[in-house]
Amino acid sequence: MDFSSKLLENAVNEVSRLPGIGKRTALRLVLHLLRQPKEHTGYLATALTTLRNDVKICEKCHNISDTVLCDICQSPKRNTEIICVVEDIRDVMAIENTAQFKGLYHVLGGKISPIEGIGPQNLHIDSLVKKVQSGEVKELIFALSSTIEGDTTNFYIYKQIEKYNVTTSTIARGISVGDELEYADEITLGRSIVNRIPFSQSLKA
Amino acid sequence: MDFSSKLLENAVNEVSRLPGIGKRTALRLVLHLLRQPKEHTGYLATALTTLRNDVKICEKCHNISDTVLCDICQSPKRNTEIICVVEDIRDVMAIENTAQFKGLYHVLGGKISPIEGIGPQNLHIDSLVKKVQSGEVKELIFALSSTIEGDTTNFYIYKQIEKYNVTTSTIARGISVGDELEYADEITLGRSIVNRIPFSQSLKA
Repeated sequence: MDFSSKLLENAVNEVSRLPGIGKRTALRLVLHLLRQPKEHTGYLATALTTLRNDVKICEKCHNISDTVLCDICQSPKRNTEIICVVEDIRDVMAIENTAQFKGLYHVLGGKISPIEGIGPQNLHIDSLVKKVQSGEVKELIFALSSTIEGDTTNFYIYKQIEKYNVTTSTIARGISVGDELEYADEITLGRSIVNRIPFSQSLKA
Repeated sequence: MDFSSKLLENAVNEVSRLPGIGKRTALRLVLHLLRQPKEHTGYLATALTTLRNDVKICEKCHNISDTVLCDICQSPKRNTEIICVVEDIRDVMAIENTAQFKGLYHVLGGKISPIEGIGPQNLHIDSLVKKVQSGEVKELIFALSSTIEGDTTNFYIYKQIEKYNVTTSTIARGISVGDELEYADEITLGRSIVNRIPFSQSLKA
């Protein structure tokens, strides 16, 4: 692209470094900012730099937090004996939105993925094993995405903790509520039949 | 969305004010920045604020520029007698990329659009009429998009300048180079037949 302004070119280059944003989209976003009052750009820049410089990672669950311990870990209302193991903070938000889980979380920060060079040492697995070792955890719920990497990570953690007295479970896989059976993939449909639940139990959810 | 961090929530809200970026995409972008070194966020924020605070609008053509007059208006190589009228800076960049135009530009800053509340007084039309009045312009090329708003804007400007001694032209509409005729819309195909050009002329382009 042939920019008439070095400042514009520089801004477009920086914005287009964000994932999924190409040069054209970056230019559209930057030109939008130029049409808005100057304060808008100031607010945006301050929000991003303040977040990047001041945000903390919860010492206990590795969730993003403004304080040393996150709100969930600090809450006296949560059941500290059940820990839900998730990949990243978006999963915490998704599960919190359901309002169906009252335990604590443990954010791994990713999944084991040899292709991307992510091994167990790059994830928060040691601190999870220590929590289990301490005996204060009764149940671990694996809520990683159902991919090879997710399954590998689940299995790796399972092997580390199976010698301790802790129940492990994984979230149910099945047909989405409201989905037509004919459009479901075979593996999901198959699992939903193998792992069928008593009808009386389905009435409670 | 239920954020565990006010800083994160604030950053996501600011990013999602950009056009075409929803909360989920904003969260994805912000989490990406958190995984990158702190400097990346700093570069991005600085590039945006510097642009917003320091960028200038060329006094002559209203293009975005780092200086009082933009590079194109300053260039001694450009033909100052031909002015291409465009909607915004992206059109300037698109035409410059073709390397087929050696005149100057005039950026209107939009199109007349009563629905969006944009009238002639909101656009840089007066300064264009003054340029024509001064007698230094021989030809105006209308290069606005071919919509009702674009046609209205073209016609409004045409009415303002028709009493002066200036040639007006509009960019050719027709089938895109490389496109199949069968997929072209009727209006474009119709116009391309009405405005056909001598075959010998097509060999030169």
